[in-house]
Amino acid sequence: MSEFRSITAETGAPYGDPLPVHGPQDVAAACAAAEAAFEVYRATSREDRARFLERCGEEIMALGDGLIETAMRESGLPRARLEGERGRTVGQLRMFADVVRKGWWQQLRVDPAMPERQPLPRPDLRMRMIPLGPVAVFGASNFPLAFSTAGGDTASALAAGCPVVVKGHPAHPITASLMAQALTAAVKACDLPAGVFSQIMGPSHELGAALVQDPRITAVGFTGSRAGGLALVKLAQARPVPIPVYAEMSSINPVLLLPQSLKARGAALGTAFVGSLTMGAGQFCTNPGLLIAMEGDGLDAFIASATEGVAAAAPQTMLTTGIRDAYGKGVAALTDHEAVETLASGDPGEGTSGGAILFQTSAQAFLANPDLADEVFGASGILVRCADEAEVMAILKALEGQLTATLHMDAEDEPLAARLLPVLERKVGRILANGWPTGVEVCHAMVHGGPFPATSDGRTTSVGSLAIDRFLRPVSYQNLAQSVLPEPLRDTALGDGIPRLYDGTLLAGR
Amino acid sequence: MSEFRSITAETGAPYGDPLPVHGPQDVAAACAAAEAAFEVYRATSREDRARFLERCGEEIMALGDGLIETAMRESGLPRARLEGERGRTVGQLRMFADVVRKGWWQQLRVDPAMPERQPLPRPDLRMRMIPLGPVAVFGASNFPLAFSTAGGDTASALAAGCPVVVKGHPAHPITASLMAQALTAAVKACDLPAGVFSQIMGPSHELGAALVQDPRITAVGFTGSRAGGLALVKLAQARPVPIPVYAEMSSINPVLLLPQSLKARGAALGTAFVGSLTMGAGQFCTNPGLLIAMEGDGLDAFIASATEGVAAAAPQTMLTTGIRDAYGKGVAALTDHEAVETLASGDPGEGTSGGAILFQTSAQAFLANPDLADEVFGASGILVRCADEAEVMAILKALEGQLTATLHMDAEDEPLAARLLPVLERKVGRILANGWPTGVEVCHAMVHGGPFPATSDGRTTSVGSLAIDRFLRPVSYQNLAQSVLPEPLRDTALGDGIPRLYDGTLLAGR
Repeated sequence: MSEFRSITAETGAPYGDPLPVHGPQDVAAACAAAEAAFEVYRATSREDRARFLERCGEEIMALGDGLIETAMRESGLPRARLEGERGRTVGQLRMFADVVRKGWWQQLRVDPAMPERQPLPRPDLRMRMIPLGPVAVFGASNFPLAFSTAGGDTASALAAGCPVVVKGHPAHPITASLMAQALTAAVKACDLPAGVFSQIMGPSHELGAALVQDPRITAVGFTGSRAGGLALVKLAQARPVPIPVYAEMSSINPVLLLPQSLKARGAALGTAFVGSLTMGAGQFCTNPGLLIAMEGDGLDAFIASATEGVAAAAPQTMLTTGIRDAYGKGVAALTDHEAVETLASGDPGEGTSGGAILFQTSAQAFLANPDLADEVFGASGILVRCADEAEVMAILKALEGQLTATLHMDAEDEPLAARLLPVLERKVGRILANGWPTGVEVCHAMVHGGPFPATSDGRTTSVGSLAIDRFLRPVSYQNLAQSVLPEPLRDTALGDGIPRLYDGTLLAGR
Repeated sequence: MSEFRSITAETGAPYGDPLPVHGPQDVAAACAAAEAAFEVYRATSREDRARFLERCGEEIMALGDGLIETAMRESGLPRARLEGERGRTVGQLRMFADVVRKGWWQQLRVDPAMPERQPLPRPDLRMRMIPLGPVAVFGASNFPLAFSTAGGDTASALAAGCPVVVKGHPAHPITASLMAQALTAAVKACDLPAGVFSQIMGPSHELGAALVQDPRITAVGFTGSRAGGLALVKLAQARPVPIPVYAEMSSINPVLLLPQSLKARGAALGTAFVGSLTMGAGQFCTNPGLLIAMEGDGLDAFIASATEGVAAAAPQTMLTTGIRDAYGKGVAALTDHEAVETLASGDPGEGTSGGAILFQTSAQAFLANPDLADEVFGASGILVRCADEAEVMAILKALEGQLTATLHMDAEDEPLAARLLPVLERKVGRILANGWPTGVEVCHAMVHGGPFPATSDGRTTSVGSLAIDRFLRPVSYQNLAQSVLPEPLRDTALGDGIPRLYDGTLLAGR
């Protein structure tokens, strides 16, 4: 068995002991264990499954400060951010525990028999959602806790009743191992089969490919680059039995500065924008990489304050040297682009650091150069100056699918916002007003998704309780004896507090 | 513009006037019209959209007996069947009208703001499902009304708010034109943009390919052969922006004859089986092509009566000569197969007719010869004789994904049925007891779907109200002003009778 090393993000130096590299036989063993665990795990009661999810969170907290320190070292992200991310990770597990208990995710439906119906009687039909089977989850480099080993994909798959095999991200292998340790402890504490959770680790793409190709895997969750996501989609589609891939890939998250808001607070918006742009060295899927504004009052003030903020922004350690190098290349391409003007750039720092940078271009140039809409992962933003509403519309219609769109607006901007809304709805998963897209609330009404290529499947979300739907499929039961029916569909279960669609009418639970 | 002819199924002779063949420019025009109609159509009120769906049904009824006579001639199916299918088609449109009115399909979610929350306030988040955009629907040859021009795919897409472009099936072009005429009349009567519904016609695969590749198409519904479905999936995945394909493809629909039911009524089951096998010349997606039984009391009686029934079955006209030829080839392959015994065959008839046939084999032979599990579209069935429960389990686990599984069972069979259920749930979309899989109820708890290759996407159904979900995607709205929010998400809409997930709890509607 070969080995690989964890890397200290700030220095690029190896950190900790050499780590074992898993191979195809480890993938096969983890998938076999997941398959073996599936029937027992999916049959757990809602209460037992909820308790398990909560226990996962407790075991993560029990890792203590060592988890935070390790994640800081491996990711280069600051303590406060990682403590917040841990809270979010644990909160996400608790939310799914609550969802599992409430039970509406089963989408129970009952159509009672109509023995007297003419010309033919109607049989008794009942429906529920069942889990797909073992799920492969790929950890993301930019959220070592909340989108990685025990992150949202894992939490939602476990909530659905699917065992999970994680491909831990090699940019934070020790953090990933600690998190896996916590989940394994929770599995054991809850007397579940060991295969409910496994993690494989290693630096090669082949390892992930073997996981996606394993016949026991029934779905894939991924957050990362467009190239990485598309490669997994291709592998999954080429299987003898194709499986769904939920890949959250790339987005430049347009921010529209509507006229009245610019006029009222252009300078303040510029300052706030830089805060969102530079947060976490810009390494967010929802980083605001594209600003769209019409010429008018307040735009100069916005530019002045944004320029000042970017110029003053300190360099920040990026997650990996690969990400730093890709960021450098993306920034260089924009800097050298003849249709683009550099408004300001912050100190890029040295080594693995990256600095903020702000560009501007015209709507015509943006439309004529589709490469200007490519994601530059990091704290790089581009302002597109539009002459009028028609140019704004043209820009929006030309954009690829995005995770988010942001409207900065005042009351007088509402008619314009209402005209923009239908266009934005077709392009993005989340539309927000007077805030910044970074900061994705984990709740029920969140959509962290969007049309291709923001994700590989725009019909879903990877954050929030709706994410559980990704790992479920419907099964219908016709005229089955009560004793054979799944418990939540039996007559005796009516009144258990779980909502049901009864003969077409949704009856609420408790 | 070239021409093609409708064919009388019974005689193979041309019928009616030559029909125009549409070309790529017609596809582009239909898709452009659908895209142009989308914003207006998706903004229709629930009541207006429901009325439109009902009107579609009324216009179909207004076609009168000419529709039935035309469909009889083109499909070779008998009057009673087609009158029933028309009733189902119209009923399906009415059901979706009812669903649209009830509104739960929008999956409204509201997470109110928590301005005081620590460490960060929670924003106001609201979510709803919006329609994907123009949908391409492929008519099926075996249900010229219920799964074709105005069938389930069209009804569910229109209910979701998506304009539809149908590729009419060339096996019943005049029926398809009549149905299109009815839908076009409904569009006009309801003052909707013409592009809400279009149909293109022609015998070539290229026409369908052009439709799937048109950039304005956002999803595809298809019922037909495995080869046809997989070809469309491949085209859709290779687009610059890939789109979902909901293809309902192939299934042999295992029927398990459990010991006590066989013992109690083997002979009656044999007779009933032949009724389901031969219905519509066996040309159903849910035709019971595979029987699984353990050696024991009643199996001989079952075989005797099934054999008698098959031998006595009259030949029936098949849908097309292509389907007849494929059926003949499939039957010949099984007849000549050394591991297979022919139990009985009915009169195959002449020309475009097909006859019933029943084979048997052993569990070991079935497991050793995967080709025995290939679908033979028509009234061909194979009985697999198993020594014990272990062999039954092995057969089930070896099967590909299926639309249905049927259990014939008595009270004493319930423990065995309970052991089989988890295995069946992973293989099929619908499990039914003491009935036959042909006859798919259009209701809320129906799943006419199943794991690959029964369908290309096992997370859905193509029959029943859940089918609407295929054409929707979620959008989240954060901190949007009330006047900008979509109407059903505004505070003023609370109490409108539509269910909402409010802060994680499902509140029922009226």
